[in-house]
Amino acid sequence: MTDLLRAAIAPKSIAIIGASENVNKIGGRPIFYMGRHGYKGTIYPINPNRDEIQGLKSYPSLAALPEVPELALVIVGGDATVAAVDECAARGVKAAIVIASGFGETGEEGLAVQQGMVDRARAAGMRIVGPNSQGLANFGNGAIASFSTMFVEVPPQDGPVAVVSQSGGICAVTYGLVRGRGIGVRHAHATGNEADVSVADLAWAVAHDADVKLLLLYLESVADPELLGRAAEFARERDLPIVAVKAGRSASGQKAASSHTGALANEDRVVDAFFRHHGIWRARDPHAMARAAEAYLKGWRPEGRRLVVISNSGASCVMAADASEEYALPLADLAPETRRDLASKLPGFASTANPIDITAALLSNSHLFGDVLPIVAKDRAADLFFINIPVAGAGYDVDTFARDTAQFAAATGKPIAVAISQESVGNVFKTAGLATFANEDEALGVLSQVASHTALMRKRRPPWPADAPVDVAQAQGSHRFLNEAESLALLAKAGVAVVPYRLCRTAAEARAAFDAIGGPVAVKACSIDVPHKSEHGLVALHVASADEAARLFAAQWDKLAALGAARDGVIVAAMRKGRHEFMVGARHDPVFGPVVIVGDGGKYVEALKDFATLIPPFDAAEVREALQGLRIAPLLDGVRGEAALDVEALAEIAVGVGRLVRAAKGKIASVDLNPVIVGARGEGAVVVDSLIERG
Amino acid sequence: MTDLLRAAIAPKSIAIIGASENVNKIGGRPIFYMGRHGYKGTIYPINPNRDEIQGLKSYPSLAALPEVPELALVIVGGDATVAAVDECAARGVKAAIVIASGFGETGEEGLAVQQGMVDRARAAGMRIVGPNSQGLANFGNGAIASFSTMFVEVPPQDGPVAVVSQSGGICAVTYGLVRGRGIGVRHAHATGNEADVSVADLAWAVAHDADVKLLLLYLESVADPELLGRAAEFARERDLPIVAVKAGRSASGQKAASSHTGALANEDRVVDAFFRHHGIWRARDPHAMARAAEAYLKGWRPEGRRLVVISNSGASCVMAADASEEYALPLADLAPETRRDLASKLPGFASTANPIDITAALLSNSHLFGDVLPIVAKDRAADLFFINIPVAGAGYDVDTFARDTAQFAAATGKPIAVAISQESVGNVFKTAGLATFANEDEALGVLSQVASHTALMRKRRPPWPADAPVDVAQAQGSHRFLNEAESLALLAKAGVAVVPYRLCRTAAEARAAFDAIGGPVAVKACSIDVPHKSEHGLVALHVASADEAARLFAAQWDKLAALGAARDGVIVAAMRKGRHEFMVGARHDPVFGPVVIVGDGGKYVEALKDFATLIPPFDAAEVREALQGLRIAPLLDGVRGEAALDVEALAEIAVGVGRLVRAAKGKIASVDLNPVIVGARGEGAVVVDSLIERG
Repeated sequence: MTDLLRAAIAPKSIAIIGASENVNKIGGRPIFYMGRHGYKGTIYPINPNRDEIQGLKSYPSLAALPEVPELALVIVGGDATVAAVDECAARGVKAAIVIASGFGETGEEGLAVQQGMVDRARAAGMRIVGPNSQGLANFGNGAIASFSTMFVEVPPQDGPVAVVSQSGGICAVTYGLVRGRGIGVRHAHATGNEADVSVADLAWAVAHDADVKLLLLYLESVADPELLGRAAEFARERDLPIVAVKAGRSASGQKAASSHTGALANEDRVVDAFFRHHGIWRARDPHAMARAAEAYLKGWRPEGRRLVVISNSGASCVMAADASEEYALPLADLAPETRRDLASKLPGFASTANPIDITAALLSNSHLFGDVLPIVAKDRAADLFFINIPVAGAGYDVDTFARDTAQFAAATGKPIAVAISQESVGNVFKTAGLATFANEDEALGVLSQVASHTALMRKRRPPWPADAPVDVAQAQGSHRFLNEAESLALLAKAGVAVVPYRLCRTAAEARAAFDAIGGPVAVKACSIDVPHKSEHGLVALHVASADEAARLFAAQWDKLAALGAARDGVIVAAMRKGRHEFMVGARHDPVFGPVVIVGDGGKYVEALKDFATLIPPFDAAEVREALQGLRIAPLLDGVRGEAALDVEALAEIAVGVGRLVRAAKGKIASVDLNPVIVGARGEGAVVVDSLIERG
Repeated sequence: MTDLLRAAIAPKSIAIIGASENVNKIGGRPIFYMGRHGYKGTIYPINPNRDEIQGLKSYPSLAALPEVPELALVIVGGDATVAAVDECAARGVKAAIVIASGFGETGEEGLAVQQGMVDRARAAGMRIVGPNSQGLANFGNGAIASFSTMFVEVPPQDGPVAVVSQSGGICAVTYGLVRGRGIGVRHAHATGNEADVSVADLAWAVAHDADVKLLLLYLESVADPELLGRAAEFARERDLPIVAVKAGRSASGQKAASSHTGALANEDRVVDAFFRHHGIWRARDPHAMARAAEAYLKGWRPEGRRLVVISNSGASCVMAADASEEYALPLADLAPETRRDLASKLPGFASTANPIDITAALLSNSHLFGDVLPIVAKDRAADLFFINIPVAGAGYDVDTFARDTAQFAAATGKPIAVAISQESVGNVFKTAGLATFANEDEALGVLSQVASHTALMRKRRPPWPADAPVDVAQAQGSHRFLNEAESLALLAKAGVAVVPYRLCRTAAEARAAFDAIGGPVAVKACSIDVPHKSEHGLVALHVASADEAARLFAAQWDKLAALGAARDGVIVAAMRKGRHEFMVGARHDPVFGPVVIVGDGGKYVEALKDFATLIPPFDAAEVREALQGLRIAPLLDGVRGEAALDVEALAEIAVGVGRLVRAAKGKIASVDLNPVIVGARGEGAVVVDSLIERG
């Protein structure tokens, strides 16, 4: 972390420009908080109308301070904001947090003022947090440069969680929800408009705090994907899970985000792909982030997904079994010894299969739990455990259940989630140190999340070859698209399997191409001026003889002339009949750079959107995994007695396209391969049609 | 409701067979509960070892009672259970609730004992609830024939909610969650194994209680769809919403359900269709049922789905906008006057578009809420309102916000959901009588639910024509399938649009058929012995001349002979080229009767499962609506400049098939129409291939 960012979250001294005596005012709260939470640095209240504020000496101006503060919290509004920030920059302040709103989020004019302020600060070597920020709070050192009301509502306690949020409101909500679960929070930072310092900067900074064990983010736009990616990779190396909410998932949401913090729109599938690529778990909302916090902090990093369910309610077993399928947590097969031992302890009508229904007999036999759990603990079939107690209370020995469960948790060392909807009963389990949820949906959701996220965090990609330089120069000058022959050649050079073809410029060449390739062939005009050939009748398929190929050459050659189009040639290509037509595409996203999509082919790709999105570098295994999420995934393994598809060959094409667009460094704007014909396993896959757009 | 069911939930007298002095024992709790909750009828404890139980005279046996009780609660276990139930039946008890388990849920043997008990009871005119039941509880009259622990944990209060559940545990959980929200519960009934009385019986009974305003069900199998359907239609007539959890959604869940209550598997899509057909809302779990209870009880029956969002947090506006898209609640366009009036009250940087961001300025101006809400209330663009206050507390005038919001709710009379994650702030809003949720997901989920459910409840189907008798007699005797000509004829007779065709028995007839229909045609062998013709090369398409048709007739005729198959004829049919190939199917479900499916055609129907499921009777509008849920739905309206499809014609085919299978009363086991070729709007749709299986 840089010294400037260090100054923002761990300043040795802090000036409050616009300090107030009133602890419920924005200018009063930070001083109050720092006093209460043991800030050891120096606080300089600045207010020309007072000599003392909250017991501290107050200064009339920044110039009057005995030293240049490391951090300035700029609370004054209106024109005074810019003047104060400019003065901070001029005097050598390392970082300024700007609370005032009315800048970039209001439109062009505000954006210009904001940008000017940032430009001057940068030139002077100062970082700016905000404007429109609620401030930064570090409970590890008491530097609470924030006015959040939530620190009054929910008492702070230092702990292993860091929250970094674009929005002050969501920073506060997330802080409150995590604290409400009894978990300590060290960092609670809000970046506001992100004119300079973004969530990525602060994520990078707090990831370097060794005491932070869980990092929660809220973003409305990914402003700096390169830095966020680096922060995520650093976190992955030190086993620090990152969970992020990225709002603005929908068109309506992006519109609202733009008027909130001036956030730029990000295509949501690309955001998903970016997070997955960097091992960041995407959560739905702050509630989902807080709900899973305890699981991460307990160090749950399950190796697998096999689940054992235990309940005293048969119906809860049924609902848990339903939820386990939904969350793809297969019910573990218990060993015969386990079932035999269970049968010796459980009533005759109880189920010894998984889910294990210990039945309402628990009411009369408090030792059932203690009897059953050690038997299950010995079984090696399970990665995850779920204990569901929908009804207990009067007549039940809840203390014993909780103690037995805690012993079981200690004995197995594996993730054990408990669901209890009665608060009084749940509290007994919580006190025993167990991760306790309101219902099976939440409990299994969290188990599934930590299992999936662990796999994502552990993902190591094989070394990616050095980017070979990509030449997108064209025979025909600076057209937007390469012609098809150029596209195919570029792909082939990048190692992508393309259909055998020849570019012919005479009928004789077409005839020779037919003989060399073998029929039937496709005959397709190739012209830089006609990217969508079939619309002009310039594609002939199933051409069965060399004569026919020569005749079609002549016809297409004439047609190009008639269209006034460049006659780059006519392609004679092998006809390939596969099992299924896929599409592979790529584009250079303005924010995230190269993005690859792979999915169902055909003419309805845009309408049906059955494709996976990946950010290179990625390997074939990642493509195969992503393909499992397609709606046509059931076809991959073969249905109705058909052979499985050659998914590996398709994946290799996607990997090759990823390498190509990444190596092109923006020189390729888009790649559209549709169809990519995929055969049965072992038969390969080939690109049949390609369109490459220059960057 | 019958007198026997009345006796179960409102008995004049009740015997407790196996009564106990200990109020924490199963035999002690009902007496304790009835004493506490003012049961006015007569309680007869039966226990041969005591003269008095809980202050009441105890009797040695049923025979010793001064009268025959209306209801008996059979608590004794083992062999004594059957003896007690038999004695009740013999002595004229109207209904018996059997608590003991170890019957149908344990397997064949237990099922036989259970069935014998029920048969004898039925013969004597007695109804049985259970076995394996937790009992029935009516807090309207104090008849608490239940031992549920939850009534100790969460104090009962009579109210407008009825809970009817197969599982005692889920009955208790649902009761507890609803009561936890401060809502009164009148009925809490659990049916257990449903050897006789099912959830449908009790749903029917409590739907007749005029004080019940919301009916919540939990089922593991739909044992009696006919009665449940009648109960639902009765409830629909009196505007009583029914929300149901049907567990066993998955294969794992159904397996667990079978060992829990011996529940039979129901295909989950059919269950969905059944509920939708009868206006029952399907909820995920008891938490979802309880969460929406207040909205129903406030009488929210919105006419539309247009939403207005108001928040003091920009980020919450963004997340609400995202959630609104997810729940298909379009953000209402505010009128220009509304936006102008809002602009006069809100700070300059606030958003007057919907979502309305009143910003953190709320901290310094407590009247913002009161200023803004009346302006929005006047706008007629909205059906639903959502107020999101993620952060408030110290420094905020929460009492004023809550009072202003309550006034707004009273002024508009429209559904207004509030989301507040801080418990202390939320409680102020709850006390003001507002429906308050933990977050935007829950709040918008409930608003969406009541809007969708209201539409479902208001659905009135046009009169369904009387079922015409269906003749599935065959030329060729009792084969499993009709031959294709018979299938097409049957469909055509039922008003289903089929492709023009002729069944030919000579080459001359084939030639004449070609001339009459016009080429190109399809020529397909028709034999009862060869339902899957194309596998035998017995389908020729694009036949362009009468000569070719005659030649193919001869070839197929010979091929049938070579196969040793019946030669029912050769079909000459028009070739139809449409825009998209769909499929329409139907079958007679063993539980639900006729079921129709309609969806994407092709050979991967089973693997890709892109179809909608409907229960007849239904109308074309319902089919069109169901088609909007298909993954290929974007194609229906035309994409890439294509014309929209003739969805109406497809819908009419589905309606016709629905009529046919319903009228067949089980004589048709299944119908498989694939492809159904659908043209552009106005071009119609026709069945091209059909296979009908006899019942």
